[in-house]
Amino acid sequence: MAKKMNLLMFSGDYDKAFAALILANTAREMEVDVTMFFAFWGLMLVRDPDKMTLEDKSTYEKMFGMMTPKGPKELPLSKMNFSGIGKSMLIEMMEDDNTPPLEAFLKGAQKKGVKFYGCKLSMEIMGFKQEEMVPELEIVTAKTYLEDALNSDMQLFI
Amino acid sequence: MAKKMNLLMFSGDYDKAFAALILANTAREMEVDVTMFFAFWGLMLVRDPDKMTLEDKSTYEKMFGMMTPKGPKELPLSKMNFSGIGKSMLIEMMEDDNTPPLEAFLKGAQKKGVKFYGCKLSMEIMGFKQEEMVPELEIVTAKTYLEDALNSDMQLFI
Amino acid sequence: MAKKMNLLMFSGDYDKAFAALILANTAREMEVDVTMFFAFWGLMLVRDPDKMTLEDKSTYEKMFGMMTPKGPKELPLSKMNFSGIGKSMLIEMMEDDNTPPLEAFLKGAQKKGVKFYGCKLSMEIMGFKQEEMVPELEIVTAKTYLEDALNSDMQLFI
Repeated sequence: MAKKMNLLMFSGDYDKAFAALILANTAREMEVDVTMFFAFWGLMLVRDPDKMTLEDKSTYEKMFGMMTPKGPKELPLSKMNFSGIGKSMLIEMMEDDNTPPLEAFLKGAQKKGVKFYGCKLSMEIMGFKQEEMVPELEIVTAKTYLEDALNSDMQLFI
Repeated sequence: MAKKMNLLMFSGDYDKAFAALILANTAREMEVDVTMFFAFWGLMLVRDPDKMTLEDKSTYEKMFGMMTPKGPKELPLSKMNFSGIGKSMLIEMMEDDNTPPLEAFLKGAQKKGVKFYGCKLSMEIMGFKQEEMVPELEIVTAKTYLEDALNSDMQLFI
Repeated sequence: MAKKMNLLMFSGDYDKAFAALILANTAREMEVDVTMFFAFWGLMLVRDPDKMTLEDKSTYEKMFGMMTPKGPKELPLSKMNFSGIGKSMLIEMMEDDNTPPLEAFLKGAQKKGVKFYGCKLSMEIMGFKQEEMVPELEIVTAKTYLEDALNSDMQLFI
Protein backbone atom coordinates (compact mmCIF):
# COMPACT_ATOMS: atom_id res chain seq x y z
CA MET A 1 0.00 0.00 0.00
CA ALA A 2 1.20 3.52 -0.81
CA LYS A 3 2.71 5.57 1.98
CA LYS A 4 0.87 8.75 2.89
CA MET A 5 2.04 12.23 3.97
CA ASN A 6 -0.14 14.97 5.46
CA LEU A 7 1.02 18.60 5.73
CA LEU A 8 -0.86 21.19 7.79
CA MET A 9 0.00 24.48 6.12
CA PHE A 10 -0.48 27.11 8.83
CA SER A 11 2.20 29.76 8.40
CA GLY A 12 1.83 31.45 5.02
CA ASP A 13 5.56 32.15 4.75
CA TYR A 14 7.31 32.02 1.39
CA ASP A 15 10.24 29.91 2.57
CA LYS A 16 8.10 27.45 4.53
CA ALA A 17 5.68 27.09 1.59
CA PHE A 18 8.69 26.44 -0.62
CA ALA A 19 9.99 23.68 1.66
CA ALA A 20 6.54 22.11 1.93
CA LEU A 21 5.93 22.15 -1.82
CA ILE A 22 9.33 20.58 -2.55
CA LEU A 23 8.44 17.81 -0.11
CA ALA A 24 4.97 17.42 -1.69
CA ASN A 25 6.35 17.25 -5.25
CA THR A 26 9.15 14.86 -4.29
CA ALA A 27 6.75 12.62 -2.36
CA ARG A 28 4.42 12.38 -5.38
CA GLU A 29 7.40 11.37 -7.57
CA MET A 30 7.95 8.57 -5.03
CA GLU A 31 4.25 7.62 -5.39
CA VAL A 32 3.46 8.73 -1.86
CA ASP A 33 -0.10 10.06 -1.36
CA VAL A 34 -0.02 13.70 -0.24
CA THR A 35 -2.61 15.91 1.43
CA MET A 36 -1.99 19.60 2.14
CA PHE A 37 -4.49 21.19 4.55
CA PHE A 38 -4.38 24.99 4.35
CA ALA A 39 -5.50 26.83 7.51
CA PHE A 40 -5.19 30.39 8.82
CA TRP A 41 -2.20 32.18 7.19
CA GLY A 42 -1.60 29.08 5.09
CA LEU A 43 -4.69 29.98 3.05
CA MET A 44 -2.81 32.97 1.55
CA LEU A 45 -0.81 30.55 -0.61
CA VAL A 46 -3.93 29.18 -2.31
CA ARG A 47 -5.70 32.48 -2.97
CA ASP A 48 -6.11 33.20 -6.66
CA PRO A 49 -4.43 36.63 -7.07
CA ASP A 50 -6.82 37.57 -9.89
CA LYS A 51 -10.07 36.79 -8.14
CA MET A 52 -10.49 38.98 -5.07
CA THR A 53 -14.09 39.93 -4.37
CA LEU A 54 -15.45 42.50 -1.90
CA GLU A 55 -19.05 41.31 -2.11
CA ASP A 56 -20.81 39.83 0.90
CA LYS A 57 -17.94 40.76 3.22
CA SER A 58 -17.87 42.77 6.44
CA THR A 59 -15.61 45.83 6.65
CA TYR A 60 -13.03 43.84 8.61
CA GLU A 61 -13.12 41.00 6.09
CA LYS A 62 -12.56 43.47 3.24
CA MET A 63 -9.64 45.12 5.05
CA PHE A 64 -8.16 41.77 6.00
CA GLY A 65 -8.42 40.48 2.44
CA MET A 66 -6.64 43.55 1.10
CA MET A 67 -3.88 43.66 3.73
CA THR A 68 -2.87 40.01 3.43
CA PRO A 69 -0.85 38.26 0.67
CA LYS A 70 -2.74 37.13 -2.43
CA GLY A 71 -1.14 33.94 -3.74
CA PRO A 72 2.40 32.55 -3.70
CA LYS A 73 4.26 35.62 -5.05
CA GLU A 74 3.21 37.94 -2.23
CA LEU A 75 4.12 35.69 0.71
CA PRO A 76 6.81 37.12 3.03
CA LEU A 77 9.86 35.25 4.33
CA SER A 78 9.60 33.84 7.87
CA LYS A 79 12.97 35.46 8.68
CA MET A 80 15.11 38.30 7.32
CA ASN A 81 12.26 39.55 5.15
CA PHE A 82 13.52 43.17 5.60
CA SER A 83 10.39 44.63 3.93
CA GLY A 84 11.01 42.40 0.94
CA ILE A 85 14.75 42.96 0.39
CA GLY A 86 15.74 39.68 2.00
CA LYS A 87 13.12 37.91 -0.05
CA SER A 88 14.32 39.46 -3.34
CA MET A 89 17.86 38.43 -2.49
CA LEU A 90 16.83 34.84 -1.78
CA ILE A 91 14.82 34.70 -5.01
CA GLU A 92 17.84 35.95 -6.98
CA MET A 93 19.98 33.29 -5.31
CA MET A 94 17.40 30.67 -6.28
CA GLU A 95 17.42 31.90 -9.88
CA ASP A 96 21.23 31.74 -9.94
CA ASP A 97 20.88 28.05 -9.09
CA ASN A 98 18.13 27.54 -11.68
CA THR A 99 15.63 26.66 -8.95
CA PRO A 100 12.07 27.12 -10.26
CA PRO A 101 9.94 29.77 -8.46
CA LEU A 102 7.33 28.94 -5.81
CA GLU A 103 4.47 29.23 -8.33
CA ALA A 104 6.01 26.41 -10.38
CA PHE A 105 6.11 24.09 -7.36
CA LEU A 106 2.50 24.97 -6.55
CA LYS A 107 1.41 24.18 -10.13
CA GLY A 108 3.54 21.00 -9.98
CA ALA A 109 1.79 19.83 -6.82
CA GLN A 110 -1.61 20.45 -8.42
CA LYS A 111 -0.66 18.53 -11.58
CA LYS A 112 0.87 15.64 -9.65
CA GLY A 113 -2.35 15.02 -7.74
CA VAL A 114 -1.59 16.45 -4.29
CA LYS A 115 -4.92 16.73 -2.45
CA PHE A 116 -5.63 20.39 -1.51
CA TYR A 117 -7.87 20.88 1.53
CA GLY A 118 -8.89 24.32 2.86
CA CYS A 119 -9.99 24.82 6.48
CA LYS A 120 -13.69 25.72 6.61
CA LEU A 121 -13.51 27.62 9.90
CA SER A 122 -10.50 29.72 8.77
CA MET A 123 -12.29 30.55 5.50
CA GLU A 124 -15.35 31.72 7.44
CA ILE A 125 -13.41 33.80 9.98
CA MET A 126 -11.27 35.49 7.32
CA GLY A 127 -14.24 35.94 5.01
CA PHE A 128 -12.63 34.17 2.05
CA LYS A 129 -15.01 32.74 -0.56
CA GLN A 130 -14.48 29.50 -2.49
CA GLU A 131 -14.33 31.43 -5.79
CA GLU A 132 -11.38 33.51 -4.55
CA MET A 133 -9.21 30.42 -4.13
CA VAL A 134 -7.42 28.09 -6.56
CA PRO A 135 -10.08 25.76 -8.02
CA GLU A 136 -8.40 22.59 -6.66
CA LEU A 137 -9.10 23.65 -3.06
CA GLU A 138 -11.77 21.53 -1.36
CA ILE A 139 -13.19 23.15 1.78
CA VAL A 140 -13.32 20.69 4.69
CA THR A 141 -13.70 20.66 8.48
CA ALA A 142 -11.03 19.90 11.11
CA LYS A 143 -12.59 16.43 11.41
CA THR A 144 -11.77 15.61 7.78
CA TYR A 145 -8.22 16.87 8.29
CA LEU A 146 -7.80 14.70 11.40
CA GLU A 147 -9.15 11.57 9.70
CA ASP A 148 -6.63 12.05 6.91
CA ALA A 149 -3.73 12.92 9.22
CA LEU A 150 -4.35 10.09 11.71
CA ASN A 151 -4.20 7.61 8.84
CA SER A 152 -1.00 9.02 7.34
CA ASP A 153 2.57 7.77 7.83
CA MET A 154 3.82 11.26 8.59
CA GLN A 155 2.33 14.62 9.50
CA LEU A 156 3.98 18.03 9.73
CA PHE A 157 2.70 21.38 11.01
CA ILE A 158 4.36 23.96 8.77
CA MET B 1 -7.93 0.61 19.89
CA ALA B 2 -8.36 4.37 20.03
CA LYS B 3 -6.16 6.51 17.81
CA LYS B 4 -3.81 8.90 19.61
CA MET B 5 -2.61 12.45 18.85
CA ASN B 6 0.29 14.25 20.53
CA LEU B 7 0.83 18.02 20.21
CA LEU B 8 4.04 19.71 21.32
CA MET B 9 2.98 23.26 22.15
CA PHE B 10 6.13 25.35 21.77
CA SER B 11 5.15 28.71 20.31
CA GLY B 12 2.80 30.52 22.68
CA ASP B 13 1.04 32.33 19.81
CA TYR B 14 -2.69 33.07 20.00
CA ASP B 15 -3.46 31.83 16.49
CA LYS B 16 -1.38 28.66 16.78
CA ALA B 17 -2.90 27.87 20.19
CA PHE B 18 -6.33 28.38 18.63
CA ALA B 19 -5.57 25.93 15.80
CA ALA B 20 -4.14 23.37 18.24
CA LEU B 21 -7.10 23.58 20.61
CA ILE B 22 -9.61 23.19 17.78
CA LEU B 23 -7.73 20.05 16.71
CA ALA B 24 -7.63 18.80 20.32
CA ASN B 25 -11.35 19.38 20.91
CA THR B 26 -12.35 17.86 17.55
CA ALA B 27 -10.11 14.83 18.13
CA ARG B 28 -11.71 14.18 21.53
CA GLU B 29 -15.17 14.33 19.90
CA MET B 30 -13.88 11.60 17.56
CA GLU B 31 -12.74 9.61 20.66
CA VAL B 32 -9.09 10.11 19.79
CA ASP B 33 -6.74 10.26 22.81
CA VAL B 34 -4.98 13.62 22.98
CA THR B 35 -1.86 14.78 24.82
CA MET B 36 -0.68 18.40 24.75
CA PHE B 37 2.90 18.93 25.99
CA PHE B 38 3.55 22.59 26.82
CA ALA B 39 7.19 23.68 26.60
CA PHE B 40 9.00 27.04 26.46
CA TRP B 41 6.66 29.80 25.14
CA GLY B 42 3.86 27.23 25.01
CA LEU B 43 3.71 27.35 28.82
CA MET B 44 2.27 30.90 28.62
CA LEU B 45 -1.06 29.41 27.50
CA VAL B 46 -1.43 27.33 30.66
CA ARG B 47 -0.46 30.00 33.19
CA ASP B 48 -3.29 30.91 35.53
CA PRO B 49 -3.61 34.71 35.05
CA ASP B 50 -4.76 35.15 38.66
CA LYS B 51 -1.96 33.26 40.36
CA MET B 52 1.38 34.91 39.66
CA THR B 53 3.84 34.67 42.54
CA LEU B 54 7.17 36.47 42.99
CA GLU B 55 8.35 34.28 45.87
CA ASP B 56 11.40 32.05 45.51
CA LYS B 57 12.32 33.59 42.17
CA SER B 58 15.52 35.20 40.94
CA THR B 59 15.40 38.76 39.60
CA TYR B 60 15.47 37.46 36.03
CA GLU B 61 12.67 34.98 36.74
CA LYS B 62 10.52 37.77 38.24
CA MET B 63 11.16 40.05 35.23
CA PHE B 64 10.53 37.22 32.80
CA GLY B 65 7.28 36.25 34.52
CA MET B 66 6.04 39.83 34.34
CA MET B 67 7.08 40.52 30.73
CA THR B 68 5.51 37.38 29.25
CA PRO B 69 1.82 36.59 28.56
CA LYS B 70 -0.24 35.25 31.44
CA GLY B 71 -2.84 32.83 30.07
CA PRO B 72 -4.73 32.58 26.77
CA LYS B 73 -6.03 36.18 26.55
CA GLU B 74 -2.57 37.78 26.53
CA LEU B 75 -0.97 35.64 23.82
CA PRO B 76 0.13 37.59 20.71
CA LEU B 77 -0.55 36.62 17.09
CA SER B 78 2.28 34.87 15.23
CA LYS B 79 1.83 37.36 12.36
CA MET B 80 0.34 40.81 11.85
CA ASN B 81 0.03 41.36 15.59
CA PHE B 82 0.69 45.12 15.09
CA SER B 83 0.99 45.73 18.87
CA GLY B 84 -2.37 44.08 19.36
CA ILE B 85 -4.40 45.82 16.61
CA GLY B 86 -4.21 42.82 14.27
CA LYS B 87 -5.21 40.55 17.11
CA SER B 88 -8.23 42.69 18.10
CA MET B 89 -9.32 42.70 14.47
CA LEU B 90 -9.08 38.92 14.20
CA ILE B 91 -11.00 38.48 17.47
CA GLU B 92 -13.77 40.77 16.18
CA MET B 93 -13.90 38.73 12.98
CA MET B 94 -14.19 35.56 15.06
CA GLU B 95 -17.02 37.07 17.10
CA ASP B 96 -18.82 38.07 13.89
CA ASP B 97 -18.78 34.38 12.97
CA ASN B 98 -19.89 33.30 16.46
CA THR B 99 -16.59 31.47 17.00
CA PRO B 100 -16.00 30.94 20.73
CA PRO B 101 -12.88 32.64 22.20
CA LEU B 102 -9.60 30.82 22.89
CA GLU B 103 -10.41 30.47 26.61
CA ALA B 104 -13.53 28.46 25.73
CA PHE B 105 -11.52 26.00 23.64
CA LEU B 106 -8.96 25.68 26.46
CA LYS B 107 -11.75 24.93 28.98
CA GLY B 108 -13.31 22.54 26.44
CA ALA B 109 -10.07 20.60 26.08
CA GLN B 110 -9.75 20.32 29.86
CA LYS B 111 -13.35 19.08 30.21
CA LYS B 112 -13.06 16.62 27.36
CA GLY B 113 -10.09 14.88 28.97
CA VAL B 114 -7.14 16.15 26.92
CA LYS B 115 -3.98 15.23 28.87
CA PHE B 116 -2.00 18.38 29.79
CA TYR B 117 1.74 17.90 30.27
CA GLY B 118 4.13 20.72 31.21
CA CYS B 119 7.87 20.53 30.42
CA LYS B 120 9.85 20.25 33.68
CA LEU B 121 13.05 21.80 32.29
CA SER B 122 11.20 24.81 30.78
CA MET B 123 9.38 25.38 34.10
CA GLU B 124 12.71 25.38 35.95
CA ILE B 125 14.50 27.68 33.50
CA MET B 126 11.63 30.18 33.39
CA GLY B 127 11.08 29.94 37.13
CA PHE B 128 7.40 29.03 36.87
CA LYS B 129 5.88 27.21 39.86
CA GLN B 130 3.23 24.48 39.66
CA GLU B 131 0.76 26.66 41.61
CA GLU B 132 0.98 29.42 38.97
CA MET B 133 -0.33 27.09 36.26
CA VAL B 134 -3.78 25.64 35.47
CA PRO B 135 -4.36 22.77 37.92
CA GLU B 136 -4.68 20.13 35.16
CA LEU B 137 -1.02 20.58 34.18
CA GLU B 138 1.16 17.60 35.12
CA ILE B 139 4.88 18.41 35.10
CA VAL B 140 6.89 15.78 33.23
CA THR B 141 10.32 15.27 31.65
CA ALA B 142 11.21 15.12 27.95
CA LYS B 143 11.38 11.32 28.34
CA THR B 144 7.69 11.13 29.30
CA TYR B 145 6.81 13.35 26.33
CA LEU B 146 8.81 11.12 23.95
CA GLU B 147 7.23 7.90 25.24
CA ASP B 148 3.80 9.40 24.63
CA ALA B 149 4.68 10.87 21.23
CA LEU B 150 6.46 7.78 19.89
CA ASN B 151 3.36 5.72 20.65
CA SER B 152 0.93 8.17 19.01
CA ASP B 153 -0.54 8.01 15.51
CA MET B 154 0.35 11.62 14.83
CA GLN B 155 2.57 14.29 16.36
CA LEU B 156 2.81 17.98 15.61
CA PHE B 157 5.27 20.67 16.76
CA ILE B 158 3.17 23.83 17.07
CA MET C 1 12.97 -3.11 16.77
CA ALA C 2 14.13 0.34 17.87
CA LYS C 3 11.74 3.24 17.59
CA LYS C 4 12.76 6.04 15.24
CA MET C 5 12.37 9.85 15.39
CA ASN C 6 12.92 12.27 12.51
CA LEU C 7 13.27 16.03 13.05
CA LEU C 8 13.16 18.51 10.15
CA MET C 9 15.18 21.47 11.41
CA PHE C 10 13.91 24.45 9.40
CA SER C 11 13.85 27.48 11.68
CA GLY C 12 17.38 28.26 12.88
CA ASP C 13 16.11 29.72 16.17
CA TYR C 14 18.13 29.27 19.37
CA ASP C 15 15.18 28.19 21.50
CA LYS C 16 13.75 25.79 18.92
CA ALA C 17 17.19 24.25 18.32
CA PHE C 18 17.50 23.85 22.07
CA ALA C 19 14.17 22.03 22.31
CA ALA C 20 15.02 19.80 19.35
CA LEU C 21 18.47 18.89 20.70
CA ILE C 22 17.07 18.03 24.13
CA LEU C 23 14.58 15.71 22.41
CA ALA C 24 17.36 14.21 20.25
CA ASN C 25 19.68 13.59 23.21
CA THR C 26 16.89 12.17 25.38
CA ALA C 27 15.68 9.92 22.57
CA ARG C 28 19.19 8.50 22.07
CA GLU C 29 19.38 7.75 25.82
CA MET C 30 16.15 5.76 25.31
CA GLU C 31 17.85 3.93 22.39
CA VAL C 32 15.57 5.59 19.86
CA ASP C 33 17.15 6.14 16.41
CA VAL C 34 17.27 9.85 15.58
CA THR C 35 17.70 11.71 12.30
CA MET C 36 17.94 15.51 12.13
CA PHE C 37 17.53 16.97 8.64
CA PHE C 38 18.79 20.57 8.46
CA ALA C 39 17.20 22.73 5.76
CA PHE C 40 17.03 26.47 5.05
CA TRP C 41 17.59 28.50 8.26
CA GLY C 42 18.16 25.24 10.12
CA LEU C 43 21.54 24.95 8.37
CA MET C 44 22.84 27.89 10.46
CA LEU C 45 23.02 25.57 13.48
CA VAL C 46 25.43 23.19 11.77
CA ARG C 47 27.78 25.77 10.28
CA ASP C 48 31.28 25.56 11.68
CA PRO C 49 31.90 29.11 13.01
CA ASP C 50 35.63 28.83 12.28
CA LYS C 51 35.39 27.71 8.68
CA MET C 52 33.68 30.36 6.59
CA THR C 53 34.98 30.60 3.05
CA LEU C 54 34.30 33.27 0.41
CA GLU C 55 35.76 31.29 -2.48
CA ASP C 56 33.55 30.12 -5.35
CA LYS C 57 30.61 32.18 -4.13
CA SER C 58 28.48 34.79 -5.85
CA THR C 59 28.19 38.26 -4.31
CA TYR C 60 24.78 37.38 -2.86
CA GLU C 61 26.08 34.13 -1.42
CA LYS C 62 28.98 35.97 0.25
CA MET C 63 26.63 38.61 1.71
CA PHE C 64 24.16 35.98 2.82
CA GLY C 65 26.87 33.92 4.50
CA MET C 66 28.12 36.95 6.40
CA MET C 67 24.70 38.26 7.46
CA THR C 68 23.40 34.95 8.83
CA PRO C 69 24.29 33.15 12.11
CA LYS C 70 27.40 30.98 12.11
CA GLY C 71 26.82 28.04 14.44
CA PRO C 72 24.77 27.54 17.62
CA LYS C 73 25.99 30.58 19.60
CA GLU C 74 24.79 33.15 17.06
CA LEU C 75 21.23 31.86 16.59
CA PRO C 76 18.50 34.34 17.63
CA LEU C 77 15.47 33.55 19.80
CA SER C 78 12.19 32.92 17.95
CA LYS C 79 10.49 35.42 20.31
CA MET C 80 11.52 38.29 22.57
CA ASN C 81 15.02 38.38 21.07
CA PHE C 82 15.16 42.18 21.58
CA SER C 83 18.41 42.50 19.59
CA GLY C 84 19.97 39.86 21.81
CA ILE C 85 18.91 41.15 25.25
CA GLY C 86 16.13 38.58 25.62
CA LYS C 87 18.51 35.87 24.55
CA SER C 88 21.20 36.90 27.06
CA MET C 89 18.57 36.92 29.79
CA LEU C 90 17.36 33.45 28.89
CA ILE C 91 20.93 32.13 28.77
CA GLU C 92 21.61 33.59 32.22
CA MET C 93 18.43 31.92 33.50
CA MET C 94 19.62 28.64 32.02
CA GLU C 95 23.01 29.02 33.70
CA ASP C 96 21.28 29.72 37.04
CA ASP C 97 19.62 26.32 36.65
CA ASN C 98 22.88 24.64 35.60
CA THR C 99 21.44 23.83 32.18
CA PRO C 100 24.29 23.17 29.71
CA PRO C 101 24.53 25.58 26.74
CA LEU C 102 23.22 24.79 23.25
CA GLU C 103 26.73 23.85 22.00
CA ALA C 104 26.91 21.09 24.62
CA PHE C 105 23.63 19.57 23.43
CA LEU C 106 24.84 19.75 19.82
CA LYS C 107 28.09 17.97 20.74
CA GLY C 108 26.07 15.46 22.80
CA ALA C 109 23.84 14.65 19.84
CA GLN C 110 26.89 14.12 17.63
CA LYS C 111 28.54 11.81 20.20
CA LYS C 112 25.36 9.84 20.84
CA GLY C 113 25.02 8.94 17.18
CA VAL C 114 22.22 11.22 15.98
CA LYS C 115 22.26 11.12 12.17
CA PHE C 116 22.89 14.62 10.73
CA TYR C 117 21.49 15.25 7.25
CA GLY C 118 21.87 18.56 5.38
CA CYS C 119 19.48 19.58 2.59
CA LYS C 120 21.32 19.61 -0.75
CA LEU C 121 19.04 22.17 -2.41
CA SER C 122 19.26 24.60 0.55
CA MET C 123 23.07 24.27 0.55
CA GLU C 124 23.18 25.11 -3.16
CA ILE C 125 20.79 28.06 -2.96
CA MET C 126 22.56 29.59 0.06
CA GLY C 127 25.98 28.83 -1.39
CA PHE C 128 27.21 26.86 1.64
CA LYS C 129 30.06 24.40 1.01
CA GLN C 130 30.44 21.04 2.75
CA GLU C 131 33.73 22.18 4.32
CA GLU C 132 31.99 25.11 6.07
CA MET C 133 29.72 22.76 8.02
CA VAL C 134 30.25 20.42 10.99
CA PRO C 135 31.98 17.29 9.63
CA GLU C 136 29.14 14.95 10.70
CA LEU C 137 26.75 16.59 8.21
CA GLU C 138 25.88 14.35 5.27
CA ILE C 139 24.36 16.24 2.33
CA VAL C 140 21.24 14.51 1.00
CA THR C 141 18.22 15.22 -1.20
CA ALA C 142 14.58 15.69 -0.15
CA LYS C 143 13.98 12.10 -1.32
CA THR C 144 16.43 10.72 1.26
CA TYR C 145 14.77 12.84 3.96
CA LEU C 146 11.31 11.55 2.98
CA GLU C 147 12.41 7.90 2.96
CA ASP C 148 13.77 8.34 6.47
CA ALA C 149 10.76 10.33 7.75
CA LEU C 150 8.10 8.05 6.23
CA ASN C 151 9.68 5.10 8.02
CA SER C 152 9.93 6.84 11.40
CA ASP C 153 7.54 6.58 14.35
CA MET C 154 7.37 10.34 14.73
CA GLN C 155 8.31 13.37 12.67
CA LEU C 156 8.40 17.04 13.65
CA PHE C 157 8.91 20.22 11.60
CA ILE C 158 10.83 22.55 13.90
